[in-house]
Amino acid sequence: MKILIDAFGGDNSPQEVIAGTVAAVKERKGFTAVLVGDKDVLDVHISRYGYPQDRIEILDAKQVITCEEEPTVAVRKKPDSTICKAFKELKENDDAMAFVSAGSTGAVLVGATLKLGRIKGVARPALCPILPTLSGKNVLLMDSGANADCKPVNLCQFAVMATVYAKALGIENPKVALLSNGTEDEKGNALCHEVFPFLKECKEINFIGNMEARDIISGDADIVIADGFSGNIALKSLEGGVKTVLAALKDAIYGSCFGKIGGLFLKKRLKGLKDKLDYNKKGGALFIGVNKPVIKAHGSSKRLAFKNAILQAVDYAEFDLADKITESLVNSGLADAK
Amino acid sequence: MKILIDAFGGDNSPQEVIAGTVAAVKERKGFTAVLVGDKDVLDVHISRYGYPQDRIEILDAKQVITCEEEPTVAVRKKPDSTICKAFKELKENDDAMAFVSAGSTGAVLVGATLKLGRIKGVARPALCPILPTLSGKNVLLMDSGANADCKPVNLCQFAVMATVYAKALGIENPKVALLSNGTEDEKGNALCHEVFPFLKECKEINFIGNMEARDIISGDADIVIADGFSGNIALKSLEGGVKTVLAALKDAIYGSCFGKIGGLFLKKRLKGLKDKLDYNKKGGALFIGVNKPVIKAHGSSKRLAFKNAILQAVDYAEFDLADKITESLVNSGLADAK
Repeated sequence: MKILIDAFGGDNSPQEVIAGTVAAVKERKGFTAVLVGDKDVLDVHISRYGYPQDRIEILDAKQVITCEEEPTVAVRKKPDSTICKAFKELKENDDAMAFVSAGSTGAVLVGATLKLGRIKGVARPALCPILPTLSGKNVLLMDSGANADCKPVNLCQFAVMATVYAKALGIENPKVALLSNGTEDEKGNALCHEVFPFLKECKEINFIGNMEARDIISGDADIVIADGFSGNIALKSLEGGVKTVLAALKDAIYGSCFGKIGGLFLKKRLKGLKDKLDYNKKGGALFIGVNKPVIKAHGSSKRLAFKNAILQAVDYAEFDLADKITESLVNSGLADAK
Repeated sequence: MKILIDAFGGDNSPQEVIAGTVAAVKERKGFTAVLVGDKDVLDVHISRYGYPQDRIEILDAKQVITCEEEPTVAVRKKPDSTICKAFKELKENDDAMAFVSAGSTGAVLVGATLKLGRIKGVARPALCPILPTLSGKNVLLMDSGANADCKPVNLCQFAVMATVYAKALGIENPKVALLSNGTEDEKGNALCHEVFPFLKECKEINFIGNMEARDIISGDADIVIADGFSGNIALKSLEGGVKTVLAALKDAIYGSCFGKIGGLFLKKRLKGLKDKLDYNKKGGALFIGVNKPVIKAHGSSKRLAFKNAILQAVDYAEFDLADKITESLVNSGLADAK
């Protein structure tokens, strides 16, 4: 099994990507890591590491799509980019099983949809990160940003796809909630009102009703469904809120002698707290609905995040999500939705 | 000047409302507090306090609208409710200048719009809380939940109204951002795309472009504009994120002896951090666009939050927002929007 990795995606590429890749092959057997990027540059960097030589390959790609480029244009005009080469390889080679990138989100999503193709029956693929919670429970948020405008049928499909994914992660009978501005059935905007009865009727999911944003990481749901605009706002607000408090806590500790002493006593526990809420630790967000697993890592990912995203890709490659998703969409009567 | 206060609104009414009211009249001269609610009950409670007798009055109202009731129905069917009586008084009595309630948000908004009436030129009033930030800067988020579905013209009006409000709060040339799923001009959902060029052209506001949700409480903007659904999600996600970390911090401190010792050294600074991010301290959210200031306090408000909300109402009563908002809407060509 080959896992393709965008060696030139993210703020810390290629160094941290390579370090994470080396760490991943050392930690787990049973796959080959394929770094996609400029071979000349990669050869120099990788020669500094010791690792099992047959476990890391390089797929040469001389171009890079930046975050500033318009995704659709860039994917069309840069066939030799890391992203386009990776999707071509995924499409043509049965051995190539998944792709990890911390590069331009737009280009990864456009490339995946156009080059790799959608799973049969899926109208719109969507991003589904795993949110960190203090209890250690996994909460999936879908869509977290791929589709800014959604139709009701898209949200229904997200619920079905995320349920298949959650089951693959080992969550039994995952609870699905609809992100809304209140918990009562009649809350929500026009889209929520339209989608609510369909979610309630859908036999393939375990729908528990509307959920307020404040309960996403502390509530009952395993899966929270939203259009990509609202989901993105929820994700980034949570991230911003957590980050702000942790930064303030750091200031409180390092801002005075008393603080430093207090910090020493609390060190281990605060580290545990920070680790639990660290988005990087979770690896990346799965782009669900395309034919092979595509994992979008955070642009600021470092070696640990890359290692985790690669190991995540290895796991997901074995999930066989595509067939299960098609089956579940057919069973729920959603397979022909446009 | 009379400030009306819903004595039976919120989880901790009427005790905490009364305690907050007494604290407010003791702290600030120049206004009379009017507690709206069942006179028999209020007389008993208030007799326990010492306070300047001529500073607190009671407006008898025997009914209460609960959060479970459908707002439009409840406002129509309960004319003797605290909310309906208060708005009647505000409408008919020039001396009655503002209203504070921690009761049903829906009923307060419906009551204000129907009974008190919209400011001339305003199509949709909206909720505008002041978000706490670590820097101490005030950030206004409008709409945070009154209008789940908005048209572009509503968002433009929100920007103009919030700008008038921010100036009244002493913010010079307040910076306005549009809540979106990215910072680039072309980001956003269909509504953002429609509203962006209008915000850019509007001479009455200082528009600085799109803003991601993670930057709301740490970014450049003084005002963040959103439809009420997205704004509500941002507000509650931030609240959830901050709350989760603070709760975990408490666990870290009280969960072990080392933690407790560390907590002692950090006590003062952690208290400062918690205070800064406490939504209650800010009082309540102003419902902008109706003829007199209406302040919606958090349902879980305690005496301090009520005191602050009442003092906020005293300040706002002197702002003369209505005329300034109409003038600004006329100047921006938005006064006749429907």
